[in-house]
Order: sequence, then structure tokens, then C-alpha cells
Amino acid sequence: MIETDALILGAGPAGLFQAFQLGLQEIRAHIVDVLPYVGGQCAALYADKPIYDIPGVPVCTGRELVASLQQQVAPFAPTLHLGQELTAFATLPDGRLQLTTSAGTQFTARALFIAAGIGAFQPRRLRIEGIDAFEGGALHYHAPEPASVAGKHLVVAGGGEEAVASAIALADASPASLTLLHRRDAFDAEPQQLATLQRLRENGRVQVVTGQPTGFATGGDGALAQLVLSHAEGPDTPLNLDLLLVRQGLSPRLGAIADWGLAMERKQLVVDPANCATSLPGVYAVGDINHYPGKKKLILCGFHEATLAAYDAAERLVTDRKVVVEYTTTSTRLHALLRA
Amino acid sequence: MIETDALILGAGPAGLFQAFQLGLQEIRAHIVDVLPYVGGQCAALYADKPIYDIPGVPVCTGRELVASLQQQVAPFAPTLHLGQELTAFATLPDGRLQLTTSAGTQFTARALFIAAGIGAFQPRRLRIEGIDAFEGGALHYHAPEPASVAGKHLVVAGGGEEAVASAIALADASPASLTLLHRRDAFDAEPQQLATLQRLRENGRVQVVTGQPTGFATGGDGALAQLVLSHAEGPDTPLNLDLLLVRQGLSPRLGAIADWGLAMERKQLVVDPANCATSLPGVYAVGDINHYPGKKKLILCGFHEATLAAYDAAERLVTDRKVVVEYTTTSTRLHALLRA
Repeated sequence: MIETDALILGAGPAGLFQAFQLGLQEIRAHIVDVLPYVGGQCAALYADKPIYDIPGVPVCTGRELVASLQQQVAPFAPTLHLGQELTAFATLPDGRLQLTTSAGTQFTARALFIAAGIGAFQPRRLRIEGIDAFEGGALHYHAPEPASVAGKHLVVAGGGEEAVASAIALADASPASLTLLHRRDAFDAEPQQLATLQRLRENGRVQVVTGQPTGFATGGDGALAQLVLSHAEGPDTPLNLDLLLVRQGLSPRLGAIADWGLAMERKQLVVDPANCATSLPGVYAVGDINHYPGKKKLILCGFHEATLAAYDAAERLVTDRKVVVEYTTTSTRLHALLRA
Repeated sequence: MIETDALILGAGPAGLFQAFQLGLQEIRAHIVDVLPYVGGQCAALYADKPIYDIPGVPVCTGRELVASLQQQVAPFAPTLHLGQELTAFATLPDGRLQLTTSAGTQFTARALFIAAGIGAFQPRRLRIEGIDAFEGGALHYHAPEPASVAGKHLVVAGGGEEAVASAIALADASPASLTLLHRRDAFDAEPQQLATLQRLRENGRVQVVTGQPTGFATGGDGALAQLVLSHAEGPDTPLNLDLLLVRQGLSPRLGAIADWGLAMERKQLVVDPANCATSLPGVYAVGDINHYPGKKKLILCGFHEATLAAYDAAERLVTDRKVVVEYTTTSTRLHALLRA
């Protein structure tokens, strides 16, 4: 059981900046995210795309923004709990919140900051009955360690940028074979990636197979050994493999949050714009997941919201000083924290 | 008479980002600022001080932030009207706003964005009757061109960082003499600046004179030739000069805005937090000058406010497309604007 002042749900830009603003208030935070890496949408959906509207940053990629935010929050070293989502929520008699993650991690927290973006990102899954049993073994939804691919017959399923990028990256990891599986021989990725893919195909290092996976077969050892592919015309065909990486994009879903009794409006958590407090005491919502009059789903608005939420929480949680607006340019207290 | 869709009062961070957000909405803006340079408080009060809480920018100086914001807004090339303040305001029968600056520039605007920070910065002035007549000639409140100092007997009045920095900078501009005038021989500046000042004093390139300027005398040509200094004890003393640079810091004042009939609360303009609209149609207030429940006077909040105000104005002013939230990562309309 981890006791913390603050728990942040979501390690995207709003969640990372939430931890920074709480740090300025000397409130330590833990962060939970369902993805196995920080950055949320910025990392998962537009890591290499340019962002032009972060104030004071004329242009950066999603990846660069995440790196900057990680550097900014580094003095406060929030503890990260990645690859897990919150599954249970309860309010204790003393007002603290009790939270459990899908990995079994348990927290009691005095404040919860929901910075869960457009929901918990879930990889779009293969819809083949029974195949879930292989997850974490022969079946992966996130790129595996390159070393684990060596010597394996690897199939990457998907037609978008994630699938193409994974195929390109893992072609260097010495697989016995690498097959890119998509329903048709057309891929949606940057021109440069497509050119690299084409070169790998010409060199025989990547094969493209078309078809829709609809079944599977196991080997003598019970391991996943074959996908069964259906086609618009003609009979099903088999595709042998040792390792299957499904990269069919991510789909957001709100998950357990929707069941916690928080006031909602069209899948958004309704907050007081003065402090981003939700309808449950001690629970804040910031970033794309919240709603208030005038709300714009922009990263820079999440930064502002996280700031207001941090001040409000500080007024409740900080007892050894009066909480007032302090400036990082001039506050010796903040300098001591930031330069520690 | 300049006709514009948007007029922004204040070229600080909030005003510059206001122009950027209006630019994304294809609303062209003019910016008026009383200071002769852009950047507001960031440039005037903490150009060299570190700022740690701009989201995505782990540390920058005020000057660096202003430079980044200028670069960011550059694609939209707002027209700057510096060194002047708004003096008159009226609403025309058709709802447009009519505004006049102290330099006589006249505007009609369909929207006004007041981003005037803690008010119009005014250099703290010498309180000597009649000395105002020399302003712009022998008397300056902003650092003059170095070339204009060569061969002159220069007096810099002030005891803070601005005065010390000006003395250090102008010591290289070949004045006939350079005197730093303050009420006592103690200066408030960074240790490095104080060390540089000490070296200049030891080399005889800067003299320090103490006293309180209370009068002046002119030469045969009517030009300012002498300050009269009073002292805690003893008789007044004269200080001869050709050029007087007063660097006694800046003091903010709200100026004419206070008389326009806008709803106010403790010297702040009350706005609707959903869109930063003031009580007057077509007039928005963003940044440190506005007030709403939960308001925090932080630069990053001004960025958010400018964004909400730009969207609200766009909904009123843009007629050739539906105003929706668009992302700079993906919108081809925004890419065309930003990369033009």
C-alpha cells in the first residue's frame, strides 16, 4: 500500500505538468498510466508530428515536448507506475482516496488528479476468440525488446505508421523472418518510412502478406504457431509464426473512471473552472478529459488547468505555509526546490 | 485611421500569444504598447532572470521567452505600435471600437484584447518641477543609442539593476565622463554586475555621486547643464552634465483603461472565464490584468486566456468557415498559415 499526497492518472503532457505544479507546492506525486511509456497522445499518436501552438515553443514534435516536460518535472521525480490502469476507487472514512491498479498496486491518496486525456489508450486488439491467452508470450500489442525478436519468425500486423515503424525497427533485430500483415498491400505512413519499407521488401528482409486474421493454430507445445487468414475471395490461408506483434493503432476508452460516480457530460468529467475540482471531494480533472464552459481541448489549456488544480490542492494539503502565487523568477523557496 | 479586425493592448507574453492565436484564426492584429520594445514585464523587469514554469520550457530567461514568442507569432506579422498608450476609447454605432493612442494613431477595431499586464509601465520619473521640458533631449528615461553618448558628460540616476546595467553598458560608449547618481553608495544588482561596476570605478571610468536631485540649472543655450543635489546634511551640491539618463525602475499604472466603464474588481478587469470577455461587447482582457474566480497571475494562465478569447472572437468575426478546435499537428489550414 503506497501512501501519497497526490496520485495522478495519466502521464501525458497534462499529467506531467500536474506533477511539476504539485512539486512547486512541495506535494509529491505518483503517476499511473496504462501505456508502458510517458507522453500520452503526444507519444502514442504524434511523436514525430510538429506542434506549433505550445506557447514559447515555435515548433516541436510530440516526442520533443514530452522530453522537455520530463526534464521540467525531473527535480520533483514523480514515481511512475506504467502499463497499468486504475481499476478500483473508494473514499475512506477520513476523506482519503483508495485506489488500485490493474497491476495490483494499491494507493491511498489525499488528492487524485485525473489527466487521462481522451481516455485510457488501448491497443486495438485482434478479435479472434481465444488468442488473448497468448498475450505477453507470443502475442504482443507493444513493441517487444529487440533482443527477444532475434531468430524468431515475426509477424507484425497493421497497416499504419505504428506497424510500418515497428517493422522497420525490428528488421534490424535479426528475426528469422519478418512479415508485415495487413488486409491489403497499401500502408499509411510518412513517405520516408514507406521508402524504407520498400527497400526492405526489395532486399527480402520484410515480406508483405495480405489477409484478415480470423483464427489461429498452436504447435505441439501449445504455443501460438499459426494465424489463419481470410480473404475477400478464395479459401483461408495459413501464416506460420513464432511471435506476433499487433500494431493496429490505439483506441481510447474511459475505463473504470466512468463508474466512479463523477459528474459527467458527454464522456467528459465536469469540473469547476476555478480549480478543476470534479463533483467528488479531492478529485480533480485536467486536460482533454474535463469539461467546463468554454473548454478547448488544447495542450496549453491542460497546463493552465493543472496549475489551478495544484493551487487548490495545496490550499487543502499544505499546512506549514500560506499558499500564495509565487514566481519562479524570484521565489527563493522555489529556487531551492528547482535547483536541488 | 487604421481599420483592423483586432487591436491588442500590450506586447507582453499574453499580448504576443494573443496575436498568435488570432493568427491561427486568420484574424490580423495590431499591437500597441507603451514601452518602446516588446515583452512587457518579461523584458522590462526580468529579462535576465530565469523562468522555470513555462510548460515545456524547463528554464529560460524573460528575454529568451519573448524572443521565442516573437518567433512563434512571426508568421502572422502583427503590426507593432510601440512607445504609445491608448488614450481614448469609444464604441461606434455599428459596434466597432474606436481607439486613439498617445502618438495620435487612430484605430477602428472589431475586437479589443487588453493584455496590459499590471498596467502600463511608466519609468519612475524625476520629481523636479520643470525638468520634463528636457525629455527626449538631455533627459531620457529609456537607454539612448550608445552613439548619442559619445563625448558627453553622462549621468545615470538610479540604484537598481537597470541603472547599474545601463552604466556598465554605456561605459563602453565613450562618454566624456559617466556618473552613477544614487541617494547612497549602495546598489542593488546581481553580484556579477556589482563586480563589473566596481572594476569600472577602480579604473576611473565610472564615478559614483550620492545625493537626491531636487533642482536643475541650464546653460547659456538653455540646455540642461546641471542637477542640484540635496543631502541629508550639509548644503546642496551641483552636478554638471550634458545628458541625464534616469533609470529608477518602472511603475505600473492602469491608465485610461480605468475610465472606459469596464467592470473592475480591485484594479482588475472582471471577465467571463469561458471566453475572457469583459463587460463591454467586443472587449476581452487576458493575462495579469483580468480577474475571474480562481485566477492566478501566471504567464501560462495568460496563454490559456488568450486562446479562449481568440476562439470567442473568431466565432463572432469569422464568417467563411465554421470555427472549431483545430490542431496544428494535423490541420492543413493551419499548416498553410504557419509555413507560409
